[in-house]
Amino acid sequence: MRIIDIIRKKRDGFPLTREEWSFFIKGITDGSVPDYQASALLMVCYLQGLDEEETLSLTEEMLHSGEVLSLSLPHTVDKHSTGGVGDGVSLAIAPIVAACGGKVAMMSGRGLGHTGGTLDKLDSIPGYRTNLSVSEFRSAIGRVGCSIIGQTADLAPADRILYALRDSTGTVENKSLITASILSKKLAEGVDSLVLDVKTGSGAFMKKREDAISLANTMVSIARRSGKRVTAFVTDMDQPLGDRIGNSLEVIEAIDCLNGRAPKDYTELTIALSSEMLFLAGIGERAFCEEKVRASIADGSALKKFAEMVENQGGDASYIYHPERFERAKDEYAVRSEKEGYVQSIDAEGYGLAALLLGAGRNKKEDTVDYSAGITVLKKRGDYVKAGEPLVLLHANGKSFAEAERLVLSSCKIGENRPPFSPLILTKID
Amino acid sequence: MRIIDIIRKKRDGFPLTREEWSFFIKGITDGSVPDYQASALLMVCYLQGLDEEETLSLTEEMLHSGEVLSLSLPHTVDKHSTGGVGDGVSLAIAPIVAACGGKVAMMSGRGLGHTGGTLDKLDSIPGYRTNLSVSEFRSAIGRVGCSIIGQTADLAPADRILYALRDSTGTVENKSLITASILSKKLAEGVDSLVLDVKTGSGAFMKKREDAISLANTMVSIARRSGKRVTAFVTDMDQPLGDRIGNSLEVIEAIDCLNGRAPKDYTELTIALSSEMLFLAGIGERAFCEEKVRASIADGSALKKFAEMVENQGGDASYIYHPERFERAKDEYAVRSEKEGYVQSIDAEGYGLAALLLGAGRNKKEDTVDYSAGITVLKKRGDYVKAGEPLVLLHANGKSFAEAERLVLSSCKIGENRPPFSPLILTKID
Repeated sequence: MRIIDIIRKKRDGFPLTREEWSFFIKGITDGSVPDYQASALLMVCYLQGLDEEETLSLTEEMLHSGEVLSLSLPHTVDKHSTGGVGDGVSLAIAPIVAACGGKVAMMSGRGLGHTGGTLDKLDSIPGYRTNLSVSEFRSAIGRVGCSIIGQTADLAPADRILYALRDSTGTVENKSLITASILSKKLAEGVDSLVLDVKTGSGAFMKKREDAISLANTMVSIARRSGKRVTAFVTDMDQPLGDRIGNSLEVIEAIDCLNGRAPKDYTELTIALSSEMLFLAGIGERAFCEEKVRASIADGSALKKFAEMVENQGGDASYIYHPERFERAKDEYAVRSEKEGYVQSIDAEGYGLAALLLGAGRNKKEDTVDYSAGITVLKKRGDYVKAGEPLVLLHANGKSFAEAERLVLSSCKIGENRPPFSPLILTKID
Repeated sequence: MRIIDIIRKKRDGFPLTREEWSFFIKGITDGSVPDYQASALLMVCYLQGLDEEETLSLTEEMLHSGEVLSLSLPHTVDKHSTGGVGDGVSLAIAPIVAACGGKVAMMSGRGLGHTGGTLDKLDSIPGYRTNLSVSEFRSAIGRVGCSIIGQTADLAPADRILYALRDSTGTVENKSLITASILSKKLAEGVDSLVLDVKTGSGAFMKKREDAISLANTMVSIARRSGKRVTAFVTDMDQPLGDRIGNSLEVIEAIDCLNGRAPKDYTELTIALSSEMLFLAGIGERAFCEEKVRASIADGSALKKFAEMVENQGGDASYIYHPERFERAKDEYAVRSEKEGYVQSIDAEGYGLAALLLGAGRNKKEDTVDYSAGITVLKKRGDYVKAGEPLVLLHANGKSFAEAERLVLSSCKIGENRPPFSPLILTKID
């Protein structure tokens, strides 16, 4: 088998066989296929697409490019979001699901560009270790019921190689390549069930709703054919989720949620995803699972579970009960509306980029993150605002607020009429 | 400007500007654009195509990636063939045109795969130097009227980089990329006129006639917009040209032609291309030029010019007057027809591969070439053959003939009825 023949075959519109995908993935993993041939094939895949068989083959070959965990536990489940702005719900969901009897094995990433990363948020909790070994991870899940760590280098190494190439060759936004990238990592975690949150809108990868629905359908098909129980939600990312954008800010928001005090959209999504995870994990019927979720918040067991997880991974759990202990940014600045009216829309990507400029995120992988920097959103879509009233508070340490203010003002559209209601959960594929 | 944005733009179907092509070509030439990004963009170009403006921009940017010669001579002209089997007519054409007053500046390549290369053929003449410096090349053309040398590294260096990438990423067979590759080198030679011989059929790059015609049209448009006088012929490469395939064998065939003794198809093509070159070079009307060409063969002046060119470049000119001096292959083997009937077709690629197996060509760039190896074709399309009668003679030095014989027999189709006449020159674009 030769990679040039595989490229030519796919180029000419013929689907590749399992053996050909295997040859490609083995080749990029062991270095025998050079990156310039890999990127040519990625561009063919981007432009010609992959059918379902091919997507399954690619996903499974990437999955088997490294270690595949075996958790040997009942009720294992994970949740994956395609990434957005202010989307820190994983931090609330993992302890809720664990408090209700699910076993949450969650490997997360760091933020890049306008989207945040769960690992950076957890890093804002003093002492919390995200680099557990596989055996520590497994025993943390067994003991506590949930663990959130960073991806280990041994899981799906082909994905890391391919992702770096896709990022620099304009071949990211293809649903089969996205599916294979996400699922190869998630399947390697060894969970039995998976809930997917596919974001769509200005702050998401998939700007168009139909693309997000198509991606969600593909991911559900492939995950199911790989033997997982799976549900995908397609949810709105046309404005930031919740009221906080930033690292410790989003940990505080998760704590608020576990105390029953989070913004409505944040709480709605947290409950919906947690309930579905418990349902898939075999804890009970959907209505029963939702009852359990609400009860775990009301009785404080979910908050306690969060503290337990933090403590078990070396973090200072007192921060969970006393979020006022989180270091606050030194400087605060209110961005005030120039007009009076209803907030028509908020470009989530604009707010995400503003948070990035304040130090909350990374432009390049090597950048360091300011955990206390970020944005508190005071007005969301449909809210009424007077001229001069604050839209957001910007938080930073010794940075200029000028550019972030400009971004916020241009991202937040004010108009005369109240905009029509737009649901958070757009559709559900199960 | 960033290459990732250029890739994305072209990927999404937008034509690139002159500045963007310039950025790309400068980037691959100075190494600031890595090969994995270049190959992704090449695949986009392959699959999406380039419009005429883009093809012109790419060609001229590749041309200006290196030195552009200025010959400062009247009547300068070159001829380029897209490559075939047994196509050694350049060796006859250069001296014919020079003998008739044209100035032929010809930079050629080596053979690869089933197609031969003019440089390898010239290397079979003892002493002949193909590596003249630019000033030696210029003075050779001024003094003799023609010179055939290898490409210097300073001309269109971007093409070498791109061609190597295209070869290994399945992005060769695209008319805009082919046009830019060929014309960037030819325009760098500094000639005023150019005759293109676009081959089509089993032994050519372009298997389909409509693809060859489309390529010829594109090359004519681009060359004309770059200020050159140009004509393209689309000619048949469904069977080998002439009767000889191999290096010294094709030099001998060129000498035969200059002595008025070459096969009909070889002579027809030589006269047509030479006459058109002289016409474009401003020597006179087409009929007048053809008269001059025929006269230069009849009066021996073209043969004398060939000897002059060889001598001027350090070669032993006695070989031109006494081709029997060329070393002959030690072993000869007649492949005999298994059937009686008319030759219906000859798969030129099959014969080319047979010659390659005998040592006449290269599988990889590093391979060495056996100058005396090759094939003498005894039966061509339309010829009648009896069972047991030889179809070809194979020439080699200590190689097994078995595989080459198998290839010849499977490439030469014998049938009952005389096949319809099929012209050598299929169309002409001027």
